[in-house]
Amino acid sequence: MKVGDNYYVTVWADGQTVYMIDQTKLPYHFEIYQAENYLQTCEAIKNMVVRGAGAIGAAAGYAMAQACMEAPKTNYERFISRARQDIEATRPTAQNLFFATKEVYETGSRSAHKALEKARSLAEENIDEGRKIGAYGNTFIKDGSNIETHCNAGWLAFVDHGSALAPIYQAKREGKNIFVYADETRPRGQGARLTAWELKNEHIPHAIIADNAGAWLMAQGKIDMIIVGADRIAANGDVANKIGTLEKAVAAYHYGIPFYVTAPVSTIDFACKNGREIVIEERAKEEVLFQEGPNAQGDWHKISVSSPGSEALNPAFDVTPAQYISAIITEKGVVDPTPSQIQNLK
Amino acid sequence: MKVGDNYYVTVWADGQTVYMIDQTKLPYHFEIYQAENYLQTCEAIKNMVVRGAGAIGAAAGYAMAQACMEAPKTNYERFISRARQDIEATRPTAQNLFFATKEVYETGSRSAHKALEKARSLAEENIDEGRKIGAYGNTFIKDGSNIETHCNAGWLAFVDHGSALAPIYQAKREGKNIFVYADETRPRGQGARLTAWELKNEHIPHAIIADNAGAWLMAQGKIDMIIVGADRIAANGDVANKIGTLEKAVAAYHYGIPFYVTAPVSTIDFACKNGREIVIEERAKEEVLFQEGPNAQGDWHKISVSSPGSEALNPAFDVTPAQYISAIITEKGVVDPTPSQIQNLK
Repeated sequence: MKVGDNYYVTVWADGQTVYMIDQTKLPYHFEIYQAENYLQTCEAIKNMVVRGAGAIGAAAGYAMAQACMEAPKTNYERFISRARQDIEATRPTAQNLFFATKEVYETGSRSAHKALEKARSLAEENIDEGRKIGAYGNTFIKDGSNIETHCNAGWLAFVDHGSALAPIYQAKREGKNIFVYADETRPRGQGARLTAWELKNEHIPHAIIADNAGAWLMAQGKIDMIIVGADRIAANGDVANKIGTLEKAVAAYHYGIPFYVTAPVSTIDFACKNGREIVIEERAKEEVLFQEGPNAQGDWHKISVSSPGSEALNPAFDVTPAQYISAIITEKGVVDPTPSQIQNLK
Repeated sequence: MKVGDNYYVTVWADGQTVYMIDQTKLPYHFEIYQAENYLQTCEAIKNMVVRGAGAIGAAAGYAMAQACMEAPKTNYERFISRARQDIEATRPTAQNLFFATKEVYETGSRSAHKALEKARSLAEENIDEGRKIGAYGNTFIKDGSNIETHCNAGWLAFVDHGSALAPIYQAKREGKNIFVYADETRPRGQGARLTAWELKNEHIPHAIIADNAGAWLMAQGKIDMIIVGADRIAANGDVANKIGTLEKAVAAYHYGIPFYVTAPVSTIDFACKNGREIVIEERAKEEVLFQEGPNAQGDWHKISVSSPGSEALNPAFDVTPAQYISAIITEKGVVDPTPSQIQNLK
């Protein structure tokens, strides 16, 4: 997608070098992180230079390909098998990372020079998934729509296009007039920081809102639809996603506003029967109690936004029951959030 | 209520001096602002040293009493009438301010030394209202309750006790085990900053949560009731309050959790038929785009928490329709949010 006047993807390779948009610097600085070898790419994954399942998977695939290219002929198998472990250790809960690493490893163990090709084709698959989600999702967007979105499920979380924002980009490309309300998404502010940054670069009219403002805008008829991404989808259509997704879904359900979940099929956990089986990560209370960012001079500060000495509770995700979801939009098509329709995507 | 080991009210007078807890310094510094004459008290009201309808009203009453004590005998009427204008100009939308100023002015114009007595009795009335709201509200709190509250409707917004927090304080006094979830309340963070500060000083177990976490806690059965304050109540029971109140009310309604509104009867606008007549103030977008607070060294910083160049929309209040409200708790008793029951409070 566009950054200024140029097109970018979140991660790509040229020869043995892997390039990544450094997301730790966004939205304040646009910098490209350059990794000359697989260990540098591992560092980048570990330090969240790339974030989001799709982008992490692609970066891991490229890291594995780098390892295959770096490996000495005399010790090839041992080197790439050790590298695979290093890569898998960077973000041990990221499923896409394991999948991509394994795929490139298996190709690489047969032929070193095919490894990069494989990594590239995995990244391109991710791009293609985003494009298809965008095309399917766009069919739900009418000209003149006001769309609310939560967190960042944009191209920065994938290789390109994204999930929740992909239909919005496609609608824009087709000349539809749209307006996006980006939920700030406390505590980490991915909506205010990343979604707004993406939308600005794509010249899509938008406003950041406090998470508190959603239902009020809905009550006034200012929201026509809500589109969100997903961290994990259960076999019955329950969706785990960033904290606050449920609150928007309940309000949307109440006001009769369509609520769409977008995700590649790889997000569906067919072994997970329903949302009750999903364990919700609780993150550090400091994320609620403090905020970080640059002041007007560009100096980075961590400030208190709470009464010193008070506790905070910080569930990072929530589970939205299938009943509140109008449809799940994937690269393989649009389904109702029911066990049988989801099974068909397998 | 308690600050450390001492009891305080938000505003009081001793002779010609008016004292106020400086709320611009909270929760980081506890300081008393001392106003030696009515113009200094005006400055304090203007600069939000006192905030909240009840506290502003009391401060205005004391300012008017100061003016009566300061007024030269030779020019008495002119002086106090000019002072009344000065006081009314400090916060021209605060209804309680006009009421208190008028009451003390009328007493003062007959007898200067009765003015302070009048101001003090108005402040005591406010304290009494809070105490009664606390007593009525407490009857809804069961031992072991988990209570969610939004924004700050605590004693800092009144002279003492508060509205939403008054029942919580009363429950605590009676030895009930309670736990409070304080919504952060973006964009201005009154929950994280002021409500948490009050609760900590009263030793009430609590946790600050991101506004996004409400529905998720409700879905898990972790919230037994919600208590909020009100900025304005229409004659039909619709309630204008801090942005985000509606979203909590809709979620509570959906999950069958009681949702209580607390307010002195003076908050009811009997001339306002319903919530559609209430115009919602839109505040500066900077409140959403930036955050202020002290860093670890105590230096105050304003930092960006959003993508530079993006717009924000900042409705400051919302209107919760009467249908989502379980009861309205006032100093004159508890009513259903219906026109006839509200009329009875007149």
